[in-house]
Amino acid sequence: MSQSEQSVGIVTPEDAFFDTPLTLNSGAVLEHYTLRFETYGTLNAAKSNAILICHALSGHHHVAGRHHPDEKAPGWWDSMVGPGKPIDTNRFFVVGVNNLGGCHGSTGPSSVNPATGQPYGSAFPVVTVCDWVRAQARLADRLGIDTWAAVIGGSLGGMQALQWSIDFPSRVRHALVIASAPKLTAQNIAFNDVARQAILTDPQFHNGNFYQEGTIPRRGLRLARMLGHITYLSDDGMGEKFGRMLRSGEYKYGFDVEFEIESYLRYQGDKFSDRFDANTYLLMTKALDYFDPGQRFDGSLVKALQQATAKYFVASFTSDWRFSPERSREIVKAMLSAKKPVCYAEIDSTHGHDAFLMTDAPYVAAMRAYLNNVAKEVAA
Amino acid sequence: MSQSEQSVGIVTPEDAFFDTPLTLNSGAVLEHYTLRFETYGTLNAAKSNAILICHALSGHHHVAGRHHPDEKAPGWWDSMVGPGKPIDTNRFFVVGVNNLGGCHGSTGPSSVNPATGQPYGSAFPVVTVCDWVRAQARLADRLGIDTWAAVIGGSLGGMQALQWSIDFPSRVRHALVIASAPKLTAQNIAFNDVARQAILTDPQFHNGNFYQEGTIPRRGLRLARMLGHITYLSDDGMGEKFGRMLRSGEYKYGFDVEFEIESYLRYQGDKFSDRFDANTYLLMTKALDYFDPGQRFDGSLVKALQQATAKYFVASFTSDWRFSPERSREIVKAMLSAKKPVCYAEIDSTHGHDAFLMTDAPYVAAMRAYLNNVAKEVAA
Repeated sequence: MSQSEQSVGIVTPEDAFFDTPLTLNSGAVLEHYTLRFETYGTLNAAKSNAILICHALSGHHHVAGRHHPDEKAPGWWDSMVGPGKPIDTNRFFVVGVNNLGGCHGSTGPSSVNPATGQPYGSAFPVVTVCDWVRAQARLADRLGIDTWAAVIGGSLGGMQALQWSIDFPSRVRHALVIASAPKLTAQNIAFNDVARQAILTDPQFHNGNFYQEGTIPRRGLRLARMLGHITYLSDDGMGEKFGRMLRSGEYKYGFDVEFEIESYLRYQGDKFSDRFDANTYLLMTKALDYFDPGQRFDGSLVKALQQATAKYFVASFTSDWRFSPERSREIVKAMLSAKKPVCYAEIDSTHGHDAFLMTDAPYVAAMRAYLNNVAKEVAA
Repeated sequence: MSQSEQSVGIVTPEDAFFDTPLTLNSGAVLEHYTLRFETYGTLNAAKSNAILICHALSGHHHVAGRHHPDEKAPGWWDSMVGPGKPIDTNRFFVVGVNNLGGCHGSTGPSSVNPATGQPYGSAFPVVTVCDWVRAQARLADRLGIDTWAAVIGGSLGGMQALQWSIDFPSRVRHALVIASAPKLTAQNIAFNDVARQAILTDPQFHNGNFYQEGTIPRRGLRLARMLGHITYLSDDGMGEKFGRMLRSGEYKYGFDVEFEIESYLRYQGDKFSDRFDANTYLLMTKALDYFDPGQRFDGSLVKALQQATAKYFVASFTSDWRFSPERSREIVKAMLSAKKPVCYAEIDSTHGHDAFLMTDAPYVAAMRAYLNNVAKEVAA
């Protein structure tokens, strides 16, 4: 079967509008909001085969397929989601959703604030993983899904899967927590703060209200992305791909691109700064910083997990230094201490943190095997 | 003996002016230049007890002692250099020098270009580790030092010590290469490039000629330093010191300082941006990127080292991830392949890359032991 035959094909995003106010962790209230989402596959009669895919920092609802035949790249997890793929749309009804605060259709800082007729900008409240999970639960209600067969995510997405299992124990049968962490370290927060400071101090940021000024804090967002990108790749992987390769074959002794890695990073930064919203970037990094599911359980992740009823799949990647295998092992140990069933896969990969988006064979095989069992449960 | 008694006391920098043109690796020529330096201890009659201390990215000639009694902090390596200390000024004549391109008194981008009567700014040429070593050799000539008992440096300073032993084999008896690397990896270069881009894209940078504009690219330099600082500390060390400690004890759900680590980093960035020259920062990072002593020996560090006659001391620190022990082991392996005598110390420390400036007991002991033997040679 060719790659194209395994695609979910052409997909169309949908919008769900909610007018029941949502009180956020910060105390702020969103009076009404829209969540943009996509679905693939068919919800069975028992409504027992639904899977929620949670996105990471720069992700969105467009997980698989294409919006139109000419779309350059398919959804961000097309390698994993589709007919016959590990998250098999012949067997599962898969939902992708853009989170609150996002910039891909769900209500966020660039959306028009009905109270003012202007984009929210700095008036958009800080959102947390818990807030996202509550909003996603309302989307599940809307779709008639009482219980997810699985909630799945990588990185920040994995944090949502973990939080779902704690906050809505009866609504999650399996949580797949990939390349994630139980909470950020000081170093993680430090990288996020440098990225935020790059944006916040960009003169074009205008305290978050740059939309009205007709500007974009492109320089700040570009730096944030360049920095982020370093932490998504492994030292070794970067070395294999770029090493000390020169752009022009010889030293130029100036500040233009000299090494290929500089060219790559600057390109990634430029591309990102044209398409991503700076306020959304800020919010996503704050959601990462705040994530700490054990916090309201006396700081104990074990206690937090004790009320969960989900079964867990946890995966990490050897060369991931943003959320290293050690962090996933912390999660696994807490699950074991809370006497929860957990499968753990530590995958040998040179792809660093980005490996969760890649197709290293042992990773794909582990996902396929686990989800095959989930599908059997659904069918039983 | 108290700490103050072990100090070299009040020291006065000196300037050496050179009017013999220096041709740089880039092909550019510095017609004349000044090197600012300090010395501690007494040069013996045989002129055989001189030690050169090479500084790292943000260092300078002020290695030990104080310029005046009220100076807040002593020189940057006061812990290591002084009477009775490992680099014992009772036995050695120690020279600290600010490198070309620096911003602490040696000729650099903020110096007045005699050709224009204006600061060099962007007209100051890119300098390399080889250029620095050649300039330092002229200072040695000026001081009547034919052969250094030792050339010593950490990080970028260690690269200079290594380069000295290759470029001037007969003039170096011992080279001490601490927390260094044989050349940068793609990841190292990537971090440097993000820092440079922060400065280069700061609207106040004015293409390097900000002096005339009466501005400082403070935002860019601050970001560069914040980012650099993360790479100087270890994940564990940062975790022990800051963890997830909150500034005000509770989440504030905003973009002001929330976690202590943010406060620390921003403070470090602010302090640095007030005192360091942005053009110098750019030049120092480029010198790091270009460093590759094996390059003109068919890319072989072993070949480069074959002509060296120095004995080597190499040290690394377990939690240093900027220049990890693995990088020092590469250097050591090349030295052994070139049949050079080398002592290698891999020091257990949580201080990350900054450990080379710290006083972990096994590190100080190793330095003391090695330099004690160097002193005995001198006396013999």
